[in-house]
Amino acid sequence: MRTQVAIIGAGPAGLLLGQLLTRHGIDNVILERQTGDYVLGRIRAGVVEQGTADLLDEAGVGARMHAEGLAHDGIELAFAGERHRIDFHTLIGRRVIVYGQTEITRDLMEGRAAAGAQTIYEAEDVSLHDVTGDRPRVRYHKDGADHEIECDFIAGCDGYHGVSRKSIPDSVLKHYERVYPFGWLGILVDRPPVSDELIYANHERGFALCSMRSQTRSRLYIQCSLDDKVEDWSDARFYEELKRRLDSAAVARLQEGPSFEKSIAPLRSFVAEPMRHGRLFLAGDAAHIVPPTGAKGLNLAASDVRYLWQALTDFYKRKSSAGIDGYSAAALARVWKAERFSWWMTSMLHRFPGSSDFDQKMQETELAYLVSSQAAMTSLAENYVGLPY
Amino acid sequence: MRTQVAIIGAGPAGLLLGQLLTRHGIDNVILERQTGDYVLGRIRAGVVEQGTADLLDEAGVGARMHAEGLAHDGIELAFAGERHRIDFHTLIGRRVIVYGQTEITRDLMEGRAAAGAQTIYEAEDVSLHDVTGDRPRVRYHKDGADHEIECDFIAGCDGYHGVSRKSIPDSVLKHYERVYPFGWLGILVDRPPVSDELIYANHERGFALCSMRSQTRSRLYIQCSLDDKVEDWSDARFYEELKRRLDSAAVARLQEGPSFEKSIAPLRSFVAEPMRHGRLFLAGDAAHIVPPTGAKGLNLAASDVRYLWQALTDFYKRKSSAGIDGYSAAALARVWKAERFSWWMTSMLHRFPGSSDFDQKMQETELAYLVSSQAAMTSLAENYVGLPY
Repeated sequence: MRTQVAIIGAGPAGLLLGQLLTRHGIDNVILERQTGDYVLGRIRAGVVEQGTADLLDEAGVGARMHAEGLAHDGIELAFAGERHRIDFHTLIGRRVIVYGQTEITRDLMEGRAAAGAQTIYEAEDVSLHDVTGDRPRVRYHKDGADHEIECDFIAGCDGYHGVSRKSIPDSVLKHYERVYPFGWLGILVDRPPVSDELIYANHERGFALCSMRSQTRSRLYIQCSLDDKVEDWSDARFYEELKRRLDSAAVARLQEGPSFEKSIAPLRSFVAEPMRHGRLFLAGDAAHIVPPTGAKGLNLAASDVRYLWQALTDFYKRKSSAGIDGYSAAALARVWKAERFSWWMTSMLHRFPGSSDFDQKMQETELAYLVSSQAAMTSLAENYVGLPY
Repeated sequence: MRTQVAIIGAGPAGLLLGQLLTRHGIDNVILERQTGDYVLGRIRAGVVEQGTADLLDEAGVGARMHAEGLAHDGIELAFAGERHRIDFHTLIGRRVIVYGQTEITRDLMEGRAAAGAQTIYEAEDVSLHDVTGDRPRVRYHKDGADHEIECDFIAGCDGYHGVSRKSIPDSVLKHYERVYPFGWLGILVDRPPVSDELIYANHERGFALCSMRSQTRSRLYIQCSLDDKVEDWSDARFYEELKRRLDSAAVARLQEGPSFEKSIAPLRSFVAEPMRHGRLFLAGDAAHIVPPTGAKGLNLAASDVRYLWQALTDFYKRKSSAGIDGYSAAALARVWKAERFSWWMTSMLHRFPGSSDFDQKMQETELAYLVSSQAAMTSLAENYVGLPY
């Protein structure tokens, strides 16, 4: 088989890139190790930056997001027993849309099916070849046979554990990493959200987050120990701990229902540089991970896809390699700023093991300064809704 | 002897408080353990916030500062081989004045002498008594005799090592502290400054600062190890290391002259709460220390003095105890914000032992974001020139 761009991974990054390329007449094939249902089963956050929403519109799959997503004009910060609102829309005239990543993936899958573009699910033993030459190839195994795709470019959208980044020699890649000494214990529950907007809570017992998927479905998190096990946390214990970390008005509005999903996620910052090796490009989690505080993961994947789509369009439509040559630097500049924001939000809001009273005071003072300063709130807002490309 | 307010310590905090009280008809005596010449011999930074300058004017000692001080509209941040200016005046319409703390102390001493108020130098074995009663007393030894001052209030302006804070029971005081794992090696040299404004440099070899006392006198610093000794650092070695940490344009303008002062200062964050115990009030370094990054030490002392002077004026002129009762909380709210700013500047600009490549990238990204964002620059500016009282 031959295509112009072989895309590894059918998560939102790969699907979004494929859809943009297809709509602009660039042939592409997506290879995915799992089934489509498996991909849809992944539970992820869904705070969509304006720029990400624009890109989904550009890909022709934004209609349901606009119809069903919740426009959020701000967030709430809870600390020292009080809640303070950061009003993005008043500060900078922009907002975010709360819309689950699963729903975005579904919309992209449907868009791809409608466009008739090819996705090969359950492709086993994917391997990349000759990525530094002019004719890279992707091999895989499916239905008992070996297959090969010849292509011009490979887009590695296969996440942190995927084969793409691992296909770049260690001598080429530089890794940056920080592992945070705690996790997020999260539940999904069919109860209305605690507040109209997300509540990020700093408490001496640890961070808490009241998020949502819809007007009737809440996503609730509490910071937990990395040693904790999901089975240690009954719903009753979860709610008891959550309520300790929230202000009384939030507690009064919390509707406790039975959770239908409960999991513990570790928090990590990770970046691999560069994001290009020959004709292989990394995008999204394949190249970088952010802790979920600030909800940048999906948006950074979309940001990478935007740069990569434009670079490939420049190559095919304008015969220019400038975009391709500049891809890694352009994508990384924005990646690092989002890494900084996620690291800062994580550092400011969580309780760190071994932290001193001084450290706790610095967090509370940073929050108190933040909600007292138009400039500081504007800085948070412009990062939260997404810095310029 | 009897006075209304006994002030412990004849540094800038004690002298400023004394001058403000004297000018408003409140009798006060200052006790100082050292000689006047010793106090004047202390070398300290001199970046004066607008609010501090206003208070010096209020005390009637601002004339020479306005005549000889250097108005600075901004600072420069150097990192990744380039320098970027933060223009306070354009961002928020305010500026700072560079004027040595020694000069401020001299102006205050002359002001006090002109007003005929009493300062008792070389007062030994100062001790505070009955501070929780209505008639506190201060005892000291001088010229071979014991003396006692009866007063209404005691202002503890005698610095971190002074007797005032130590006179408050441990059960009352809560301490917050962070000791930074490096020092500042500084020199004074009679050469023009490297730039018209201060240069704060982040470099992987460590922090550097090009400051000044006047148009002809530079104050230069480099981050050093706490194990370093001044005698290990010849002028030649100092300049060699400084030049490694500066951009080429700064290096070209650096005029190397013989240093006439060279010292290593540790960096520490410290706060003691509350700042009042009965009729004893702490002000300045007696209650809190900031690392010098951001130049908040003198300004925080002035801020405390402003609250305390107003509280005492309320008491004597309006028979109200509200200011006195609110002193600690009001002063500490501003103290903590300046502690946060100093901690943040220190954290962002220094190389920490054991820091990872990720940590270094976070610093560089924070700086890159900062100089790219009007909001972030405004936040720095409003802290640097001084938050509202």
